[in-house]
Amino acid sequence: MELTDLHLLSASEAARLIRDGIISSEQLVEACLTRIREVDPQVQAWAFLDADYALTQAHALDELRLSGRAIGPLHGVPIGLKDIFDTTDMPTECGSVLYAGRTPSRDATVTAMLRAAGAVIMGKTVTTEFAYFSPGKTRNPHNPEHTPGGSSSGSAAAVAASMVPLALGSQTNGSTIRPAAYCGVIGFKPTHGLISRHGTLTISRTLDHVGLFANSVEDIALLVGQIAGYDENDPDTRLRAHLPFAVITAEEPPLPPMFAFIKTPHWQCADEETREGFAEIIEHLGSQVEEVELFPSAGDAWQWHQTIMSAEMAHNLEREWGIGGARLSEQLRAQIERGREVRAAEYLDALGRIKLVNDSFIELFEQRYDAILTPAAPSAAPKGLASTGDPSFCTLWTFCGMPALSLPLLQSSSGMPLGVQLVGPRYGDARLLRTARWLAAKVATS
Amino acid sequence: MELTDLHLLSASEAARLIRDGIISSEQLVEACLTRIREVDPQVQAWAFLDADYALTQAHALDELRLSGRAIGPLHGVPIGLKDIFDTTDMPTECGSVLYAGRTPSRDATVTAMLRAAGAVIMGKTVTTEFAYFSPGKTRNPHNPEHTPGGSSSGSAAAVAASMVPLALGSQTNGSTIRPAAYCGVIGFKPTHGLISRHGTLTISRTLDHVGLFANSVEDIALLVGQIAGYDENDPDTRLRAHLPFAVITAEEPPLPPMFAFIKTPHWQCADEETREGFAEIIEHLGSQVEEVELFPSAGDAWQWHQTIMSAEMAHNLEREWGIGGARLSEQLRAQIERGREVRAAEYLDALGRIKLVNDSFIELFEQRYDAILTPAAPSAAPKGLASTGDPSFCTLWTFCGMPALSLPLLQSSSGMPLGVQLVGPRYGDARLLRTARWLAAKVATS
Repeated sequence: MELTDLHLLSASEAARLIRDGIISSEQLVEACLTRIREVDPQVQAWAFLDADYALTQAHALDELRLSGRAIGPLHGVPIGLKDIFDTTDMPTECGSVLYAGRTPSRDATVTAMLRAAGAVIMGKTVTTEFAYFSPGKTRNPHNPEHTPGGSSSGSAAAVAASMVPLALGSQTNGSTIRPAAYCGVIGFKPTHGLISRHGTLTISRTLDHVGLFANSVEDIALLVGQIAGYDENDPDTRLRAHLPFAVITAEEPPLPPMFAFIKTPHWQCADEETREGFAEIIEHLGSQVEEVELFPSAGDAWQWHQTIMSAEMAHNLEREWGIGGARLSEQLRAQIERGREVRAAEYLDALGRIKLVNDSFIELFEQRYDAILTPAAPSAAPKGLASTGDPSFCTLWTFCGMPALSLPLLQSSSGMPLGVQLVGPRYGDARLLRTARWLAAKVATS
Repeated sequence: MELTDLHLLSASEAARLIRDGIISSEQLVEACLTRIREVDPQVQAWAFLDADYALTQAHALDELRLSGRAIGPLHGVPIGLKDIFDTTDMPTECGSVLYAGRTPSRDATVTAMLRAAGAVIMGKTVTTEFAYFSPGKTRNPHNPEHTPGGSSSGSAAAVAASMVPLALGSQTNGSTIRPAAYCGVIGFKPTHGLISRHGTLTISRTLDHVGLFANSVEDIALLVGQIAGYDENDPDTRLRAHLPFAVITAEEPPLPPMFAFIKTPHWQCADEETREGFAEIIEHLGSQVEEVELFPSAGDAWQWHQTIMSAEMAHNLEREWGIGGARLSEQLRAQIERGREVRAAEYLDALGRIKLVNDSFIELFEQRYDAILTPAAPSAAPKGLASTGDPSFCTLWTFCGMPALSLPLLQSSSGMPLGVQLVGPRYGDARLLRTARWLAAKVATS
């Protein structure tokens, strides 16, 4: 491999080569920066990027390795952070003019964990305004006239265009799975509470999740293993045994996995190419997939999700509304205004449904299925940059806090990626990754 | 001691005598039943009591002890449960005609823990309607024309009248501390989340606490040690090291405790006798007490408490409202109607204040003080049975989820008890009990 192609390495390969002294972090980061200079003028994935500072980090990590001291599993590997993760050494503007120039005094928990694992914080990637719908400048790397999806637009696009092997985003509705599907990368939204959100933008404590982007399931497993865990500053994280995600992901399933194909009430929004793609996958899986009807009570989850999200956004963005309501987008203002009308009793009712809907899914998983199979989005990335597309195929799983992953297994006739979404039971993250790796390999070898 | 006086034993003494074979549980329960027959026609503390069934439990526990098998720390000791704790062998009616004859199919977590510790579940004590304000039939044992307080009316009165040495109640505003003060017993509301509420009436997840009643701090410590702990069915409990409450409570403090006397914004409601009583206590404590001004932001806690309590009650009693709204008391209907008007954003704002107000108190405790000293109620038990009195001296500590305890250290000129309330930092329960035991001993020997 040429030094100029190092940006094509997976994170796992890159970490091994750096650990073994075959390449340096500086060489890897230099290759990524070169790639960024080539493609980012068109893609525009970055909200902040200081090439010299990235190289300085890489250089320091190379020195550390040469000193013989212990190094972390991500030593020298660059990662992009959605511009909602606090970083003490870079601005964190959350896609809003209200936060222009804001540089936090503390790292987010996840930022600190990544530094501890040896990662190079490459820069901050473009987010929609406050991780809601109003788009940033990023374009789809497969076609600049199409949206990259959102809200984690820059992170999905940066990984898709091989500017970095890893990136973090977030998901409150469909903000990781949808851009991953549109950009043709792997997006992973783990179980709610698996990864701390302390030091990241809060729009909805109940629904906010950290999201992961990579080009292989192996890389997702490597990354999640470094950032999962209890944080006393995020009350939704829990003390749990730490799982060896990478080891479990690499294992062969004891039996071929069984998939439950669930159309959801939004199937009629799925376009012809998505339907055809799923028909192919289902035929290919044969007896390993069964169509399962969603239980009727889950049909209200989209409304409950909106009740919770709008009410919590109205609460969490109250200060921003107060200091600069007129400088918020019309979409965001409308959402906050909807949220302000929500009654507490209606909100509490919606909250209470999360456990009930999860309980109904538990039965499904315990009885028979390893994962739910469902579209990641109703279509490939739509044309136009004014909208980030439709999150409705993500809403139910986000509401439930169940782990979900998008695999770029299909293509539209025009060559745009189409995502296949896998969903597992809460805290079944490692097994879901194992199932996803199995499915990706099966489709690749067919 | 005569067998007929066994009802005067503390729970700790009774447990020791039973363990040593000096008395039997049956003798103890018989003495308590005799006492109940004497005084309960006037006090009316019990919602359900089956004398034969209590004796059957005692007899079985005596047999178990005689068999040489291991016995629990409360073996053979009778306890009264407020009629909001689910019991499979007795009705649980929550003080509402809507629940008449309801017998649950599962014990509350705490009921099961008490049975495991060897307690005799003596019966169910009177609660106000759904543990809110509308009074039950119970009268104050010190004067039947006065309220016993509420909502844990029967539990406080039963312990005050020596019908049982122990009882459980609950507190969402002032429902343990206030009746304890009015009836002249010790009431303890531990840290929010220390004791599971699974299988008890939920009116407000955020504010509901299990409450304890006894006639000595030692007994409170014995009881809390049996029922504190993590319960996966109560999401507000936490995995924590199990503390030896009884041992810590019995220890001498390393230094004489320091008290912060806090009047709160409701001090102007305290009557002359309460003010005089506190002046005496403060004089008696000398340099061990300092008056501390409450920080101004805490002054809104009463409103935040009402926002949370009314909104959560509207949510939690929605079914009852639907099936029998007309059979709810006017007070409860008005509260639910207020709660239905609360906006989610206002509710979430109030929720967010809990941590902020707690953080301000932490400083107070870490710097200098072992406990806050403040009235348990603005006066002795008011005359009349139509109201259960004023909870306003309890609201702030309930809102914060801080442990609070009422000691019957004062008396009105007419001989009615007046409570002194001690409050500690969250999860400082054991130390608060140690401080309370110290204070009770100091006042007793003065």
